[in-house]
Amino acid sequence: MKPETTTAIANREVKKGDVLSVARVAGIQAAKRTSDMIPLCHPLLIGAVSINFELGDDFVEIEAQVDTVDRTGVEMEALHACSTAALTVYDMCKSADRAMVIGELTLWEKTGGRSGTYRRFVEDEAVETQQPVEEV
Amino acid sequence: MKPETTTAIANREVKKGDVLSVARVAGIQAAKRTSDMIPLCHPLLIGAVSINFELGDDFVEIEAQVDTVDRTGVEMEALHACSTAALTVYDMCKSADRAMVIGELTLWEKTGGRSGTYRRFVEDEAVETQQPVEEV
Amino acid sequence: MKPETTTAIANREVKKGDVLSVARVAGIQAAKRTSDMIPLCHPLLIGAVSINFELGDDFVEIEAQVDTVDRTGVEMEALHACSTAALTVYDMCKSADRAMVIGELTLWEKTGGRSGTYRRFVEDEAVETQQPVEEV
Amino acid sequence: MKPETTTAIANREVKKGDVLSVARVAGIQAAKRTSDMIPLCHPLLIGAVSINFELGDDFVEIEAQVDTVDRTGVEMEALHACSTAALTVYDMCKSADRAMVIGELTLWEKTGGRSGTYRRFVEDEAVETQQPVEEV
Amino acid sequence: MKPETTTAIANREVKKGDVLSVARVAGIQAAKRTSDMIPLCHPLLIGAVSINFELGDDFVEIEAQVDTVDRTGVEMEALHACSTAALTVYDMCKSADRAMVIGELTLWEKTGGRSGTYRRFVEDEAVETQQPVEEV
Amino acid sequence: MKPETTTAIANREVKKGDVLSVARVAGIQAAKRTSDMIPLCHPLLIGAVSINFELGDDFVEIEAQVDTVDRTGVEMEALHACSTAALTVYDMCKSADRAMVIGELTLWEKTGGRSGTYRRFVEDEAVETQQPVEEV
Repeated sequence: MKPETTTAIANREVKKGDVLSVARVAGIQAAKRTSDMIPLCHPLLIGAVSINFELGDDFVEIEAQVDTVDRTGVEMEALHACSTAALTVYDMCKSADRAMVIGELTLWEKTGGRSGTYRRFVEDEAVETQQPVEEV
Repeated sequence: MKPETTTAIANREVKKGDVLSVARVAGIQAAKRTSDMIPLCHPLLIGAVSINFELGDDFVEIEAQVDTVDRTGVEMEALHACSTAALTVYDMCKSADRAMVIGELTLWEKTGGRSGTYRRFVEDEAVETQQPVEEV
Repeated sequence: MKPETTTAIANREVKKGDVLSVARVAGIQAAKRTSDMIPLCHPLLIGAVSINFELGDDFVEIEAQVDTVDRTGVEMEALHACSTAALTVYDMCKSADRAMVIGELTLWEKTGGRSGTYRRFVEDEAVETQQPVEEV
Repeated sequence: MKPETTTAIANREVKKGDVLSVARVAGIQAAKRTSDMIPLCHPLLIGAVSINFELGDDFVEIEAQVDTVDRTGVEMEALHACSTAALTVYDMCKSADRAMVIGELTLWEKTGGRSGTYRRFVEDEAVETQQPVEEV
Repeated sequence: MKPETTTAIANREVKKGDVLSVARVAGIQAAKRTSDMIPLCHPLLIGAVSINFELGDDFVEIEAQVDTVDRTGVEMEALHACSTAALTVYDMCKSADRAMVIGELTLWEKTGGRSGTYRRFVEDEAVETQQPVEEV
Repeated sequence: MKPETTTAIANREVKKGDVLSVARVAGIQAAKRTSDMIPLCHPLLIGAVSINFELGDDFVEIEAQVDTVDRTGVEMEALHACSTAALTVYDMCKSADRAMVIGELTLWEKTGGRSGTYRRFVEDEAVETQQPVEEV
């Protein structure tokens, strides 16, 4: 991602609108419709969804957190939210920066449920705690 | 992705079903519904969609190709198809391999349209020509 | 709304079909898909939905009632049902009466839930009790 | 609508997020999915959609403009966009201001198409020209 | 289908509502969303849809007609409309008549398009001309 | 259905792809979205869905089984899954065999729920036990 692109996003100067704001709504909507798009995902009633963005020099980091009281995990909902938010960022910036890459989408942490708590590497978690959190 | 996972996919031994077959359908359906999920995408009538998979030792490479005769580009449809197919692979294999990463989603080539032809680096294209193509 | 329009609706003479019958189905379907359309609405499982119409001289009054046993309120579902039913009436009558206005959509009564019972002004409620109720 | 509510919207202090930004996305998405919700609406490919808001002391005025090159009118798409944007404003502000009323949804101007140009009363149009236009 | 069931449908006495009216709306909506449900169906813009019902002693005959100016056939849209209308009839009558069978769904006639005109057996067509046509 | 068609399906030689595999995904997706398509169906959270196919000489038999822990029956979900899977088979084979008929869709067995167990005729059940079951 070009530094000009992240600067334009930060300054809300992208011609198609406020990128992070639109991407957040897209991510929330996607979380709710995950079982529509992923064939073997169970439909479930998600509770809170939050999508957080961190703007780097040449990247946008996206983190989604999804809660449920349902009988099954919601990691697919969180991944689908991130993925759709990232595609929305791409779509809104692509006329100025066609070579953007969407990368490294993965599960970070899962708690509760039958399969117990899962956490990715500790050094990554250190990065996570530095993220500003905007609650929707 | 663990080598055991790609082996299980190749041998159609994943418990949830034939992974690539389900992922292909998911990708095609996603291509058709891109403007439902990406807020500022124009609705358009896509023509042919093909989703191709290459199984590596520890990865699945996914390539989507979308055609249209409409007045606008379909790169978002192709990216959305790849992304949804990848999430479907993740979903079907996640109980055995939770640490999978979905990565490096990007536009490879775009032809036609007002903005002319776009191609990513030449050395990548060499890889592309080695892919087996399964037409849907 | 022109008196001719309400007369045509009452006599089932509108060319596009039986207006209230189609509007009722549209309202019920809309209630079920509220969280698809309103970004920050939680998905929930609604129970009974009833949409009732009262034909006046120059207006159609629409009332929706939605029940749920879920953990959250369903006023958005009821408002979405009314709004979609009203747009359906507009759509089916617009070729003869383009100047129709859809107005005064509001919450009438809410019972149960954490926030307790809410009721709009008492004098309005008197009108409500005169409505014929067609249960779907 | 309480003056406190419009002030909170203007200052982006509503707890659920940036109200007008979310409502704009909801309106655009709704315009694209009108034929899904209104039974006798034809599906069509809409072009540009813009949703504009004017904040008054105790109201939010919403105006949607939809273009198409298709064979039929898009007034239902514009009305559906306004209606969904208004419901989104209601949803995001309802915990603080339950008595809000959504009102006076109507067609303002339609140009092109077989049925020719339609304009609502001239004095209303004067108001329209004072609206700040935020293009999406 | 029990004769009591068709009588109840004809007299609009089914408890869940006016069966044919709801089934007609369901069929029209289904025609518009065919490519959402049938994976390899191309999305296309359908024009007029009409769903016609003939009530027999112990059956409801459903016929759908779909027009398009698009580049491809709409037989799947017509079959999907019939199928969904039939399921709606089943759903609304099932509490009184659980043993109903939905049967003999097939393409009757197709005109235009690259593959030319197709017509099913002539003796069946004789039946078709006796159907009352209710245009939506 | 022509014997050539069932042979082509069995040998995975149909030009549009692996028919039963695509039809299974279509059926599962349809089960999840039943209340979107059938107006008076309640939305509910389905659990496991399995779609099984038996290839005869000149027919494909489709059986869907749907489980739920919800408060209401899921027979509409099972019928919708079968119906959509059958339409998918039709769609993928129609260029070679336009005269196919989709027939005899009915409820086979329902257990649990307020209305008790329902079973269709015993002689049919004998056939059922011979079906190969492919679990998704």
